[in-house]
Amino acid sequence: MTKVAAIIGGGVIGGAWAARFLLNGWDVRVFDPDPEAERKIGEVLGNARRALPSLSDHTMPAEGAISFHDTIAEAVAGASYIQESVPERMDIKHQTFTAINAACDKDAIIGSSTSSFTPTELSSEQQDKSRIMVCHPFNPVYLLPLVEVVGGSTAAPEAVEACMEILTSIGMKPLKIEKEILGHIADRLLESVWREGLWLVNDGVCTTEVLDDAIRYGFGLRWAQMGLFETYRIAGGEAGMLHFIGQFGPTMDWPLTHLMDTPELDDTLVKKIADQSDAQSGMYSIRELERIRDTNLVSMMRALKAQNWGAGSVLANYDAETKAALGEPDLSGLVRTVSRTVPLDWLDYNGHMNEARYLQAFGDATDRMMEIVGCDAEYIASGGSYFTAETHIRHIDEVSAGAEITVDTQVVLGAGKKMHLFHFMRASDGRLLATGEHMLIHVSLETRKAAPPAPHIEEKLVAIAKAHEALSVPEGMGRFVGQGR
Amino acid sequence: MTKVAAIIGGGVIGGAWAARFLLNGWDVRVFDPDPEAERKIGEVLGNARRALPSLSDHTMPAEGAISFHDTIAEAVAGASYIQESVPERMDIKHQTFTAINAACDKDAIIGSSTSSFTPTELSSEQQDKSRIMVCHPFNPVYLLPLVEVVGGSTAAPEAVEACMEILTSIGMKPLKIEKEILGHIADRLLESVWREGLWLVNDGVCTTEVLDDAIRYGFGLRWAQMGLFETYRIAGGEAGMLHFIGQFGPTMDWPLTHLMDTPELDDTLVKKIADQSDAQSGMYSIRELERIRDTNLVSMMRALKAQNWGAGSVLANYDAETKAALGEPDLSGLVRTVSRTVPLDWLDYNGHMNEARYLQAFGDATDRMMEIVGCDAEYIASGGSYFTAETHIRHIDEVSAGAEITVDTQVVLGAGKKMHLFHFMRASDGRLLATGEHMLIHVSLETRKAAPPAPHIEEKLVAIAKAHEALSVPEGMGRFVGQGR
Repeated sequence: MTKVAAIIGGGVIGGAWAARFLLNGWDVRVFDPDPEAERKIGEVLGNARRALPSLSDHTMPAEGAISFHDTIAEAVAGASYIQESVPERMDIKHQTFTAINAACDKDAIIGSSTSSFTPTELSSEQQDKSRIMVCHPFNPVYLLPLVEVVGGSTAAPEAVEACMEILTSIGMKPLKIEKEILGHIADRLLESVWREGLWLVNDGVCTTEVLDDAIRYGFGLRWAQMGLFETYRIAGGEAGMLHFIGQFGPTMDWPLTHLMDTPELDDTLVKKIADQSDAQSGMYSIRELERIRDTNLVSMMRALKAQNWGAGSVLANYDAETKAALGEPDLSGLVRTVSRTVPLDWLDYNGHMNEARYLQAFGDATDRMMEIVGCDAEYIASGGSYFTAETHIRHIDEVSAGAEITVDTQVVLGAGKKMHLFHFMRASDGRLLATGEHMLIHVSLETRKAAPPAPHIEEKLVAIAKAHEALSVPEGMGRFVGQGR
Repeated sequence: MTKVAAIIGGGVIGGAWAARFLLNGWDVRVFDPDPEAERKIGEVLGNARRALPSLSDHTMPAEGAISFHDTIAEAVAGASYIQESVPERMDIKHQTFTAINAACDKDAIIGSSTSSFTPTELSSEQQDKSRIMVCHPFNPVYLLPLVEVVGGSTAAPEAVEACMEILTSIGMKPLKIEKEILGHIADRLLESVWREGLWLVNDGVCTTEVLDDAIRYGFGLRWAQMGLFETYRIAGGEAGMLHFIGQFGPTMDWPLTHLMDTPELDDTLVKKIADQSDAQSGMYSIRELERIRDTNLVSMMRALKAQNWGAGSVLANYDAETKAALGEPDLSGLVRTVSRTVPLDWLDYNGHMNEARYLQAFGDATDRMMEIVGCDAEYIASGGSYFTAETHIRHIDEVSAGAEITVDTQVVLGAGKKMHLFHFMRASDGRLLATGEHMLIHVSLETRKAAPPAPHIEEKLVAIAKAHEALSVPEGMGRFVGQGR
């Protein structure tokens, strides 16, 4: 199979399809009559190049070549995969498929980004309907894995399988939808929320902002990792899905939404759901599902905290409060620079805190010491900071999630551009877990080169270093890797 | 204000409320007539103790004391915050509020976990309605920040403000809902999806698993960080929200859902939405919103990859494929152990790759070398592994997101339990970014103590070390922190 994709129709969706293929090493041939197409696709490509490689822990294939063509016939020449993303009008779709079919390879897969039409409708004017199917993606297409693949009653099962293989190879999650239906699955769910949301805004119950917050601080986080039914399975607890779903029967008549068309939640439907839920999640106990869910939520919310966004900004604000409550540190002896729990997302395959997280904790300790001497966010914004030049860590003992750890810091040297720190990491029972020795250099953030710190910072640092001269030289200071004890 | 909370009604919701307060240093007094209440709440508390402290980068307050009481009067004594989570029946709610009001402090806040009733309904039999409000949380309550706070027409505005302050102080996101309505906001959205989902399963369009996948691999990820309207604002692009929403007018009659009750999307509603969207997100350009969204998605999907779950398992599978495509490494010289892009979530406040991520990349390089000598997942499952004992890093140059980096590895020593590695990290232009020197010790995962590796591993390691004797001694090997050049 040639790794050549034709993108018919650019824009936000087509452009992102182009990016997915291109960054996975495919050559991409674009047809879009919009004279602005190249610029618009270039902008989407810029976003994709910025973000998509971040998902991978290995270098992606070398980018393919992108070319723009004046006709559909020219664009589809030699393509093994063709994605149609033209406007959602049946007449345009039919013309497009006729032009594609007239010129494309006889075994090329033809996917449509449509949310409004079924494969039967899309292929109705084509003699060969076997390779035309819905491949409905989600914005941003270059990041979100989902593609709803609908072959319907017209596409050949082998073509659907071949299509799913291609989509998997470019990092996507093709989801086979067995029945043809307007809106497929996801857009039907989105449409119901959209209509209810419009009512709520229309009736002045809430603003768009409050509605969005009601999603992203709550069930939106759940739905990033488990869907509707798996989440409710957990809510049902050990009583089981059959019992849990059954109790919703009477509520189907409640006006809990403006949208009052409801299926009858009779025994047959209740059992159908319970059986499907068993097939979907029955390999896990409810307790296991709870823990998987919780670890996922913790990991995602911590990821959002690093971006200070949404639920993550709630955590960041909470951290700022708990930190302020610690008060001013005593600087005359070792300085308590970290006091925290080892979070669930810091473990590795050996079942203990990963080595890189030791340095993360020591880095936090260093940040705290920088802040104490006055190198805080405001100072950094003014153009000065400390960069770590050299690090030595002894990993002395293990620690697992949930353990309380502390870091205490000795300022070995603080003079001129240099800050030499020695960190002691301990468990709550006093066990020494690790030591970290670090040389930091003050830099200008403009030149990115060594530069003296502001006088008030050097003064504070020197004072602490002077006080710490009374402390003993840390055991292990000046060690090199592999040195005898 | 005393930090004493009364929890009236245990179970999954009440128990998690208890955990939220308890782990934030509040004393918690529980009333629940269920003889199993203490055991059930204990299980929820166990989950909360495992997960909640992981959200914070500082040690949380010392846990408060939890006590169980035989009457509501006893439970609410001295409480400044009271949360009601009894069954969703109006008669039970009324009895409960009467019992609470008869015994509680006169300025205690009384929140209800109800999704089915309004504050006006809840307080209708009480003389003092001013401190009774809806505080509707989301499962798991000990992790998800959202609480819908509805004061309605009966609660005093000062009481609502005081309530929101308390909820914020225990790490939650209280969202004030101005109008009383059955289901508040989030449950109305959930109910619409639930009803549509039931139709789709009922009609055999998809299974519960396919429906869940249609959520969690696509829009669920979006909704963990931006809601419905902010997401659509981006989709609208520079044409603006007014234009974007306006074009949905004609689609409101399409049968895109079974739920066909639709508001009229006329000019007034379109303008209302556009204005609210401007107020919500107008401080960001569309391009900025795209980048924020993308960085959030990358961060969350990478967090899920570490758990090998949902969208994260799609990434993990993709990584396994790209890694397999690399083929077998040449072991006669320096071994290429890492080849990757610096992802967006590896940056810090200095605008470059954070120091801990250097060690993460070196740790990945070490993992790859372990795998090459035969210490792979299967071997580790059999009970042996290597632990890092000592690390020395020289941070020589900076690197930012999107940069291609490689790590090449020299085996300095491989004998008995010891594996001494020296890693070189380079940018794609050849610049040396950092070196990492590491001593690893082979351990038994059962005893967690040093133990010899399996013979086939030692043999392979010795062979590579022998081949690497021909390489020059790495510059910087054996350095200690602060050593002169």
